[in-house]
Amino acid sequence: MKIITISREFGSGGRELGKRLAEELGIHCYDHEIIELIAKEHGFDERYVANISEKCIEAAYPTTIGHRFAMPPVQIMDQGFQVAAAQQQIIENFAKQGDCVIVGRCADVILKDYHPLNLFVYADAESKIQRCIDRAPEGEHLSRNDIARRMKQVDKNRAQYRQMFADSKWGAKETYHLCVNTSGHQIKDLIPGLAAFVRCWYGEK
Amino acid sequence: MKIITISREFGSGGRELGKRLAEELGIHCYDHEIIELIAKEHGFDERYVANISEKCIEAAYPTTIGHRFAMPPVQIMDQGFQVAAAQQQIIENFAKQGDCVIVGRCADVILKDYHPLNLFVYADAESKIQRCIDRAPEGEHLSRNDIARRMKQVDKNRAQYRQMFADSKWGAKETYHLCVNTSGHQIKDLIPGLAAFVRCWYGEK
Repeated sequence: MKIITISREFGSGGRELGKRLAEELGIHCYDHEIIELIAKEHGFDERYVANISEKCIEAAYPTTIGHRFAMPPVQIMDQGFQVAAAQQQIIENFAKQGDCVIVGRCADVILKDYHPLNLFVYADAESKIQRCIDRAPEGEHLSRNDIARRMKQVDKNRAQYRQMFADSKWGAKETYHLCVNTSGHQIKDLIPGLAAFVRCWYGEK
Repeated sequence: MKIITISREFGSGGRELGKRLAEELGIHCYDHEIIELIAKEHGFDERYVANISEKCIEAAYPTTIGHRFAMPPVQIMDQGFQVAAAQQQIIENFAKQGDCVIVGRCADVILKDYHPLNLFVYADAESKIQRCIDRAPEGEHLSRNDIARRMKQVDKNRAQYRQMFADSKWGAKETYHLCVNTSGHQIKDLIPGLAAFVRCWYGEK
């Protein structure tokens, strides 16, 4: 069974890479579906789930708590764990259904026993900023500095979120089987090569 | 023009990967040839050149100097730089001759202006130790601990040697375009996928 997990730096094109790689391999890609399912099953708002599952449980505290060192109310803490548990179950269910690509959400950790092929997608800062600018929704005009700050924050959150589940470090090459630097390349141009690598990895000629 | 540089952890199979990848792509692979040429042109012993060009200039001091803090005699220091300069020239000459794979020797730094595709090959400690045991010359019986120690030392030397030429860090994924974890895999099984990736990288279908 082919299970490919994609971890990625913000702006590196990892999401697009996951989607296109799955298409090329003719298998499912799960990305936002995970958020949608959790939100639906637990009656949460999708953005709230995305916040928790991409950031860390602390991100689930309402910002009105204000004081940084305040202990989170038990209920909110619980919700964070609820989301994490739901995420784990949903990702495992996806994996059980057969070959797939899963983007983000610590799938490499959650599916450890399934021996997934774990990819990490990264790029240099300039490429990532340019990618964010090129893909910004119409009417959104963030400066390069704003984007760089956001990039740093999202990646920090991803690293922290991972740390809650695993000893291995987010973004450290030892954690992954293949790390792909997308700087200066169109994602679509790399897909046939990556698909060939995946097939080799799984012993297909 | 395809120029592929291979940097690698000791025992990860990077040398074999470079050789096989070049074969698959139908291009030259330069590895020990570099050492041989330097030795021949400058009348040095091959092992001496290998020591310098894989380690650092300090490795060129005769061990009889003994005292760690002694300044190296100018002549010996000069020889270290001579080897480094010869290496640079030889590697540039190889690159000018056309498509090739170059293993080690900071080729990624030396050939920066040629925009090579830089691969890093790594593996987990257990896989690397096992690979060393499997490939040890007949009659060599090093313990796992001995191998682990040697592995650490060689990689440390490689990192230090690189530091003399470049700001970017040996082994840090940012330094490379693709990082391949060979743990638990036969190198030969990964080659068709890696060759396909190389072709995509260079815009071939």
